[in-house]
Amino acid sequence: MTLTFKEPSTDKSELEDAGDFTPRFDDRGLITAVVTDIRDGALLMVAHMNAEALALTLQTGTAHYFSRSRGKIWKKGETSGNLQTVKEIRTDCDQDAIWLMVEVAGHDATCHTGRRSCFYRTVELEDGKAFVKIADDRRHFDPDQVYGH
Amino acid sequence: MTLTFKEPSTDKSELEDAGDFTPRFDDRGLITAVVTDIRDGALLMVAHMNAEALALTLQTGTAHYFSRSRGKIWKKGETSGNLQTVKEIRTDCDQDAIWLMVEVAGHDATCHTGRRSCFYRTVELEDGKAFVKIADDRRHFDPDQVYGH
Repeated sequence: MTLTFKEPSTDKSELEDAGDFTPRFDDRGLITAVVTDIRDGALLMVAHMNAEALALTLQTGTAHYFSRSRGKIWKKGETSGNLQTVKEIRTDCDQDAIWLMVEVAGHDATCHTGRRSCFYRTVELEDGKAFVKIADDRRHFDPDQVYGH
Repeated sequence: MTLTFKEPSTDKSELEDAGDFTPRFDDRGLITAVVTDIRDGALLMVAHMNAEALALTLQTGTAHYFSRSRGKIWKKGETSGNLQTVKEIRTDCDQDAIWLMVEVAGHDATCHTGRRSCFYRTVELEDGKAFVKIADDRRHFDPDQVYGH
């Protein structure tokens, strides 16, 4: 049976306390998920979940998201083998964000570019303009080979 | 002069490379910001920025967000003194999320409940229902005193 979630309380203090998990999906039915590596806390990715993806994640222990570009449930790593086993889940004070601490299978990579983390670039100001600079260029897999482009 | 951002390229490979920082704001004009502590990488909060908040953050080095509930720019810590000095900014592969590594002033607390992190609760399944349980209850300040409720 699919897990369902109760409606969030309008009472702020109830939302912030222990008790029912009542995720606050936005007007698109989505909640933000932050994903870190359980080993060292490295930030791997940020994604979105609808209620179905969140229920699947809780019930299977494997991270599922909602792909906004494809408009469907996305079992992370299904193609690349880089599945995420969820070791701990947290939520924030107003329950509108989820934090997954995961173990990454396969290539120990989360980004579709082959890098360990999607956050491989710094943002820097130079002469009043903002640039991105590559801070991590180590590829754990070849995207062309894995995704068959 | 306020910093402005170029329109994101529709070419995915251009978005993923080094070059101009072209943040991808959503249809509400917002981008997700993940905030960690520069000392130990602890996840402190998740918030949203509009272009103005992002520009202010880059130009002043102090974190600014856009409060969706109040509908305005929010200089984090302005009331509590828990300002965030931004030590490094990163963005992800498709430039629709921002990662701030910060130094927290004041009480060394980010959550309005007085806790260090907004993610003070775990989400757990029990008898097919999802609950939140408090994992960190240490208060660094008294919210009533600080916010004057």
